[in-house]
Amino acid sequence: MNIDGKPYRTIFPDPDGESVQVIDQTRLPFAFELKRLATLDDAAVAIRTMIVRGAPLIGVTAAYGLALAMRADPSADGIDRAAATLAATRPTAINLRWALERVAANLRQIEPHERFVRAFAEAGRIAEEDVASCRAIGAHGSRLIADLHRAKGRPITVLTHCNAGWLATVDWGTALAPIYAAHEAGVPVRVLVDETRPRNQGAALTAFELNGHGVPHTVISDNAGGHLMQHGQVDLCIVGSDRTTASGDVCNKIGTYLKALAARDTGVPFYAALPFSTIDWTLHDGVKEIPIEERDGREVTHLTGRLPDGGFATVEVVSPGSPVANPAFDVTPARLVTGLITERGVCEATPEGLLGLYPERRAAA
Amino acid sequence: MNIDGKPYRTIFPDPDGESVQVIDQTRLPFAFELKRLATLDDAAVAIRTMIVRGAPLIGVTAAYGLALAMRADPSADGIDRAAATLAATRPTAINLRWALERVAANLRQIEPHERFVRAFAEAGRIAEEDVASCRAIGAHGSRLIADLHRAKGRPITVLTHCNAGWLATVDWGTALAPIYAAHEAGVPVRVLVDETRPRNQGAALTAFELNGHGVPHTVISDNAGGHLMQHGQVDLCIVGSDRTTASGDVCNKIGTYLKALAARDTGVPFYAALPFSTIDWTLHDGVKEIPIEERDGREVTHLTGRLPDGGFATVEVVSPGSPVANPAFDVTPARLVTGLITERGVCEATPEGLLGLYPERRAAA
Repeated sequence: MNIDGKPYRTIFPDPDGESVQVIDQTRLPFAFELKRLATLDDAAVAIRTMIVRGAPLIGVTAAYGLALAMRADPSADGIDRAAATLAATRPTAINLRWALERVAANLRQIEPHERFVRAFAEAGRIAEEDVASCRAIGAHGSRLIADLHRAKGRPITVLTHCNAGWLATVDWGTALAPIYAAHEAGVPVRVLVDETRPRNQGAALTAFELNGHGVPHTVISDNAGGHLMQHGQVDLCIVGSDRTTASGDVCNKIGTYLKALAARDTGVPFYAALPFSTIDWTLHDGVKEIPIEERDGREVTHLTGRLPDGGFATVEVVSPGSPVANPAFDVTPARLVTGLITERGVCEATPEGLLGLYPERRAAA
Repeated sequence: MNIDGKPYRTIFPDPDGESVQVIDQTRLPFAFELKRLATLDDAAVAIRTMIVRGAPLIGVTAAYGLALAMRADPSADGIDRAAATLAATRPTAINLRWALERVAANLRQIEPHERFVRAFAEAGRIAEEDVASCRAIGAHGSRLIADLHRAKGRPITVLTHCNAGWLATVDWGTALAPIYAAHEAGVPVRVLVDETRPRNQGAALTAFELNGHGVPHTVISDNAGGHLMQHGQVDLCIVGSDRTTASGDVCNKIGTYLKALAARDTGVPFYAALPFSTIDWTLHDGVKEIPIEERDGREVTHLTGRLPDGGFATVEVVSPGSPVANPAFDVTPARLVTGLITERGVCEATPEGLLGLYPERRAAA
């Protein structure tokens, strides 16, 4: 999407044809910087330190990481070692594993000397497919917004949590794709952006995205959404997902579950938007089965931001000496989810709903 | 309660007998400083800028503020003007209005020259009554914790939101009083402390209090509580209240409603602890009737904290140019509240429950 009128993607091949460029998301919203990833290690560090983040983008970056590893060691062992290194960077997003398996399976069928070129091309295909998926999610989801606009006869307010925008994917986004599509179609839509502690992806990334593309929005603390729903100020919730079970349970950024509860309590429709690569067909109970990443407590105790003089500083905000816990994701049970928006359409968050969109999974189920 | 082994109150008469000292809560947790309030204006500024905060403490400070005003202008007009000034400092907490009405009614019955001394003494009485109320809340609420400990045979984890500890009152606190009482009685209890964005009263004040008094605790982002409840890591929620309706609806810091929803969804008991002065007997529908303070968006966009060198800085954390909304409180409907812990005991969050504890209100109801 656009930054100050210029279209960007989050990840794209470097002109050298042997590396990729990514937007360094740890520097947003105050600085816009590209970073070149040339090795397996570059890619693993980029994922682990959240230079890139967002389940779909992590998947694409991992695919490129596996490609970059093939330049150094295209052996069968090299494939396994690189895939294991990349898989260990983040535990929750399933797209990471999905992308690695797809590229690795592809590589095992060909000779070592062909592997770098093939893997690089395959990563590019995954990126293009992600863009197409996200555009389709946008088309399907924007109909929900347009329908609400027609029914209510006023601008539609969508609450979202974390960043599931174009910065979380290659382009368009998942949760924000319907918003971009509605906005481009002239449907009046505004966004309530949860700041999304502790890493503030909403305040830093979603607000930056929407600003850059000219979509009206308001940033709120994570605590405010329930109150605003109680008072009729939210028409619809759309969130992304880091892993969705075959039963429709939605794992997403910590705090999503609380918004789903408020939406249910106040009659606000609650949707998760995700591409097929986010669905984990092997799982049926998200709360019990999805591993939840526990991140460094320093994300809670310290914040980095801009000083009045334009410099940057990291400040400590928690009472010194107090222990901290920092689970990064939670699971919203399917019963709280009005529907899932995928590249194939909108379905109920149920096994039957998902199988209706993905009938080829019926045999496996 | 104790700070490093030395007992404190949040507000106490200065030795000069004509002013009061308060703990400057905007400086916590990194600096402990007392501030002297000598005039009406001092008191109004202290409440408005949250040097003192917490519904019961606001009430006591307002009472002292009205007393301080009587030194400058003890006329009937002076009472009205001072009460109006103090009432306008914060809109949501009902204790503020309750304390002002009590002192003003008292003052109107006596001669102007007697008013300062009477008002100062009356404010002192309100402070002592608050301590006694909070101690009683602690005794009643600690039985809930002790019962859970007996039933579960392991340490009890209580989740709390914002700061309803001794810093929010004169001493003991409301939501934290049961925890202090249980801790002192040897019942193993630990606290999950919501950081409580945007002002971080949990991370800054509740964590500071519990640290100072030696109560085990862990700070979490506001987003984490639902996930921890889903996974059986919370035995009980106790929050404070800024205003509770006659029907048992609980107005408290923004985000409380989300925790009540999660507690209901996961079967965790959810209590609000409050003295009688927090009950607004005139209201029956909290969501519709309680005015919710909208505070400066800068509380969301900027954070102040400690730098590595020990200095302090304020950093900007929201994408520049994004609008912000900042409602400060929300209302948890009575149907989500397991019970209310007051100085007279524990009751259901219903009209009958409250009238059972306060039968003298039956005639009025």
